[in-house]
Parts: sequence; structure tokens; C-alpha cells
Amino acid sequence: MRQTRFFHLLLAVAVSGICFAQAVQTPVVEDFKPASTNQPGREYPQVNSEGRVRAGISAPEALRVQLDISAVKYDLVKDEKGFWTGDSNPQDEGFHYYQLWIDGAAVPDPSSLYFYGASRWGSGIEIPAKDQDFYALKNVPHGQIREQLYFSAGNDTMRRCFVYTPPGYDKDTTKRYPVLYLQHGGGEDETGWPNQGKTNLIMDNLIAKGKARPFIIVMDNGSWRWPSNVPRPRRGERPAGTWPPAGWADGFKKTLLEDIIPMIDSNYRTLADQPHRAMAGLSMGGMQTRVITLAHPDVFSSVGMFSGGSISPEDVKNAPGFKEKIKLVFVSYGSRELENGRARFGGDPRADMDALKEAGMNTHFYVSPQTAHEWQSWRRSLHEFAQLLFRDNP
Amino acid sequence: MRQTRFFHLLLAVAVSGICFAQAVQTPVVEDFKPASTNQPGREYPQVNSEGRVRAGISAPEALRVQLDISAVKYDLVKDEKGFWTGDSNPQDEGFHYYQLWIDGAAVPDPSSLYFYGASRWGSGIEIPAKDQDFYALKNVPHGQIREQLYFSAGNDTMRRCFVYTPPGYDKDTTKRYPVLYLQHGGGEDETGWPNQGKTNLIMDNLIAKGKARPFIIVMDNGSWRWPSNVPRPRRGERPAGTWPPAGWADGFKKTLLEDIIPMIDSNYRTLADQPHRAMAGLSMGGMQTRVITLAHPDVFSSVGMFSGGSISPEDVKNAPGFKEKIKLVFVSYGSRELENGRARFGGDPRADMDALKEAGMNTHFYVSPQTAHEWQSWRRSLHEFAQLLFRDNP
Repeated sequence: MRQTRFFHLLLAVAVSGICFAQAVQTPVVEDFKPASTNQPGREYPQVNSEGRVRAGISAPEALRVQLDISAVKYDLVKDEKGFWTGDSNPQDEGFHYYQLWIDGAAVPDPSSLYFYGASRWGSGIEIPAKDQDFYALKNVPHGQIREQLYFSAGNDTMRRCFVYTPPGYDKDTTKRYPVLYLQHGGGEDETGWPNQGKTNLIMDNLIAKGKARPFIIVMDNGSWRWPSNVPRPRRGERPAGTWPPAGWADGFKKTLLEDIIPMIDSNYRTLADQPHRAMAGLSMGGMQTRVITLAHPDVFSSVGMFSGGSISPEDVKNAPGFKEKIKLVFVSYGSRELENGRARFGGDPRADMDALKEAGMNTHFYVSPQTAHEWQSWRRSLHEFAQLLFRDNP
Repeated sequence: MRQTRFFHLLLAVAVSGICFAQAVQTPVVEDFKPASTNQPGREYPQVNSEGRVRAGISAPEALRVQLDISAVKYDLVKDEKGFWTGDSNPQDEGFHYYQLWIDGAAVPDPSSLYFYGASRWGSGIEIPAKDQDFYALKNVPHGQIREQLYFSAGNDTMRRCFVYTPPGYDKDTTKRYPVLYLQHGGGEDETGWPNQGKTNLIMDNLIAKGKARPFIIVMDNGSWRWPSNVPRPRRGERPAGTWPPAGWADGFKKTLLEDIIPMIDSNYRTLADQPHRAMAGLSMGGMQTRVITLAHPDVFSSVGMFSGGSISPEDVKNAPGFKEKIKLVFVSYGSRELENGRARFGGDPRADMDALKEAGMNTHFYVSPQTAHEWQSWRRSLHEFAQLLFRDNP
């Protein structure tokens, strides 16, 4: 199963935390500028035209300070005032989580803004991208990101989601909108898409250009608890048995179908039917989308999986109604996640999409150029996917 | 001028960053629990029933680690595994900013959530309060916090505010609401009231009990640039000339009157007139409220100043229309900010409120028990103020 192998990779990276000290050996272009993700007025970290990150922090009594980004640690060097600086190798365009190590303590950079990912609130940095215009903040009509608190009967607790309402939502209060349920990845939460995902800016810009139909986007928390009957793997060890554990998506599926969708349909002006409801997600959220939409083609009409597996002809064969009822299957990856067209740990998503298209389904396969399992791939995926959504349903 | 002296204090604290190492000498009650402001699943920091904070961080190679809270630094002690822990003295109930020092580097605690204050995103900790029920997350009807992006012509830039809409705002789309413009303090921003201020929960709980009229709350960024013609003071030095510099509130006043209010009135279902418009703020935001409402009693009918100065009979005498048009003046302080009833650096706010009441105005003076210049004072102030607002206007 491709999603099984994929999860192995994810877990290996998350659990073992493999890191290598590595010296920067090529000459560095000295055109560093403060990152757009810095706290107001902070000079560091900086980024140059090669995409290198230059970290800087005052730590006069420290013995060793390191920048830790994209699973590599870089030693910083102290000046006579106790200020440490050092550069990373060039990074992919887009957004990256990072942290600093100060004498063995892993801490957020006090100069950066903070984002939730890798199971923690911590530092993130934006590497300017050639195509960053599609998520730039512009003087166009803007939708809103709303923090929505609600009671979930199934979990007997209060929950939170973020809801994007498109520009004009409050102007014409007779108009109703389609809804996309958009999920984050493992170790992330409901803040990922509205913060580092730039969901609202991507949509506002597309809608301003007439390239996407205005729709509502619901971003909730799809995190799941480790099943109590499955032993937790130790560091570096592969988990026993099938992976992910059987039923791992059931908890969120129940919450989504029984709590979230009814709550959204009763609090927002939705078009509350299958033709106007889509689900998508990145990484773990893509795998949840796969499991949930294969089982419920009566609920969703469009499916998006960003760096989170694929849907094969066999999957469709085993999912009654899926072929007939689903109007769009969109699968995407970052180019660096593919080797000879195959997702690195199994599967050929393009071949899957071609086969489903051959069989009469409306499929799209997208590859984000020169990016890996990271947010620039997912911003681009949303940008592509949104333009295809709800186009044929009045 | 009382606001002049107040600003001196604020600046002295902010600029000099006075800190003292101090040992905890009294016995410590061993009933520590993880703080509610921790990142998900984190064991540290912890708080005990005395309000002490126990910090904890792994830093195996560090020489010195300190907890820095309420302007005091506490040395942590390392165990054999390189994990450092240490306790603070008891803290006031409510919310406090803090940070860690690791071998001379001031960093956020990697285990806490992050808040904007003291001119940085950094750690904050919640000390359970006897009255915390008024801002607890409950299963009651909830309003929304909306992120609103808008173009400000006066500043030729995009700006952001947060807007609280009360429960039911989207249900009956014919109903219109009064508006409170609610400002943060110096070194804070538009995230202060919706995050650590708990604005939405305070309002949701009050409205659920029928103790406050539902109204809209707009939380924008009132930060101001240092006037280019006033030299910046050095560390520990008092600024030259009058303080705050003449005209310091003009920038935000113009933005508020010309950009923010018209934008809100055109995008939300407001009752867009003076009787249904209030302004309030904490600390610097209170001082802005004072200056702006004294000059514009035609725009606002209610005024709230939380730990941010007072309005004297002389002020009112010099403000044409204020006495006749303003329907509520609310002034509050934390008890620890007052000495024999006087705000520590000048003025007797209670005497001011008594004198204005004597002269026929509707005034309220509130003192938050056992709190200082901190968020618990301001949460309580909003809780009191909100119950008085817009009560007599249909």
C-alpha cells in the first residue's frame, strides 16, 4: 500500500530527527535581507538571492549555537560582542520550519514569527519564490478568516476551526456558497492553512482575477490519537503491523460528518449538498481525504490530495458509487517527492490519474516545480485545485 | 500631566529591562500542574497553588539557564540528564509574559504558546485565577473573531484588524449592532485583545447570561511611529521634552476616524451613529482613547480607560461638547497600580470620576483586586465596562 510506505517515511523523519552538521563550502552571495517572516523590526534571520538563511542571535556566554533547518544543523560563529551568525545551504523557495540550538537546548528563534508544525509552535522562514505573487497581500477585495468555536457532541468537547468566507459574503445575504473542507498534515493543526498556507490570500487573488468561483473553506483539526491497542514505535523503529493502524481515520471521519459539516451548514450560507461539497488535504490530510471520500462519495463531489497519496483504479473499483458520483480527483506532489515519476516510497500517482481519466473520470495531476514535502507545494496545489472546483455546478 | 508621568514609568521598564537575580527562600507547595498556556502535551512550565511558575527545559551543554518573569530572573538547576528546572516567586493571578535566558541568549520557552507583548512574540503563562470562570471556554453560543484585511488610504497600505461579532450575528441579517473600538497597550498589537485578552470568551459568557448587550468589537493596531523630530532616548535615559511628544495620537486618530470606522460601517451591520459607538483601551490605548474622545465627543458616546490615565474636570472643561454628549466615562486600574488611591505616578482617578459624577456625568471607577499593570486587570475591566455599554440606547 503506497500510503503505508509513505507513513513510514514520515514517521522515520519525525521520530529519528536525523541531522547532519555540514559546512557551507561554496562562496556566499552577500545580498541578504531580513525575512518577511521576521517579527516587526528584526534584522535577523536574513535570506539571500540563493535562498540561503543567515541566522543571528546574541548569546554571549554560549559555547555552541546552531541553525537547524530542513533537517540539517549549521554551526554559527560568535563575534567579539557575543553575537552569533551563520548561513545555511540554499533552501527551496517557500516556507520552512526551523529552530536554533543553544548549548544543547532546541529553542525558537526569538526574532521570527511562530507557526504550528512538526508538532510544535516554533520558527518559520519564508524564502522568496519566483511565483510568490499568487499569495501576495494586495489591494483587492478580501474575504475573512473567522475563528469558529463549536461544541462537538461526538467528542463531548468544544472545538475550533477557521472558516474562510469569500469577498462579498456579507454584502448579499441571500447568496449561498459551495464548501471545501481543507485539512492540514501530521504534526500540524487548524492554523496551518490560514497561517503558512496563505489560504485567504490565494483565494482572494484568484477570485479578484475571476479565476476561481467564490466558495467557503473550512479548516479544522484532523489530528488523531494513537489507537490504544497499537504499541507506539520507539525512536527509529518501524511500527508493528499494518500502517496506518486500521481505523485511524475513523475518529476524524465521524467528527467531520456528524459535527463539523452540520455545524457549518447551519451557521454559514452553504449550498448544503454533495455537488457543492469538496474535501482536500495535505500529507496526512490527503490520506484522510482519500479514506473518507472513497467511503462517502454521497457526501463529497470533489477530492484533492496534496503530497498525500493517490487513488488507484483498484481503489475506485472497491468504492461503490465513487466513479459515478465524484466529479473531480486532483492529486499533486512536489517534484522532489517523485523519482522517475513515482512517489518516492511507492506508487505512480500520474499513472493512477491517467488510468482513471481513461476510465472516464475527471482527474488532474499536478507537480510543483523544485519543491519537496513542504508548504510551497501545498500553496501551489491549492492554487491549482481551487481553479477547478465547483466549475460545472450552478 | 498624569499621562506624561505614566509614560515615563512605562518607558523606563521597557527600555532599561531592569532585572534582579533572586532566590526563592520560602517552602514551595508541591502541587504543580502544566499551565493552560502550554503547547499541546507539554509538561512544563507548571504552576502551583501559590501561583509559582516552575520552568523546565533540556539544555545539557548550557552553563546557566534562567526563568525571567515579572522583571525578575530566577536561576534554574540542572539534573544529571541535562534538564533544568526552577521556580519563581508567587505571581499575580492572570496572564504574564516571560522568557528564558540560556547562556546569555533571551529566548521564548519552546514549551509555551506565544503572545505579542513587550514588543515581541514570546512566551506567556496563565496563573489560574479565582474569577477565571468569566473568561472560561464554555458550551454557550459563541461569536466569531474575524480577521479583516483592508486598504487604508491615509497610510497607503493594507492593514489588519480583528472584529468580534456576537453570537447570532449571521442568523438575523436584518439586525444592526453598536460598536466598541478597543485598543491594546504599548508594545502590543491587534492580537492582544483577541488572544491573551480573551475578548470573545468574556463577551460570549456575558451575553449568554444576559449581562451585556450584544455588540461588535473592533481591535485594530494603534502603534505609532516615533516622531522624526524627537530624539530617541537611550537605554535608561528619560526622553527629552514633553512626553508623550505633541501630536503622538494624531496618526492613529486619523486612521481610526478616516479609515477604520468607515470601513467597519460599510462592511458590518453597525448602528453607525454616535450613541452606538464607544472607544476604550488599555495603557497606551487608554491614553489614545482619552485624547481622541475628548476631541471627538460627536463620534463616540462612551469612553473606557483601563490602566491608562483618567479624565479630570479640567479636561472636560477644555473639551467642548464632551460633558453633554458623553454618556459613560469608565476608568479602571489594577489595585497594585494605586498608592493611597492615587495612580502611582500621579493623579487620583477615583476623585476625577467622583467630581465628574458630581457635575452630572455618568462615571464608573473600577479597581481590579490584587493585580498590577497586566492583563488580568484589563480582562476584568472589559468585563465590567461591557455590562454598562449601550444600555440606554435602543
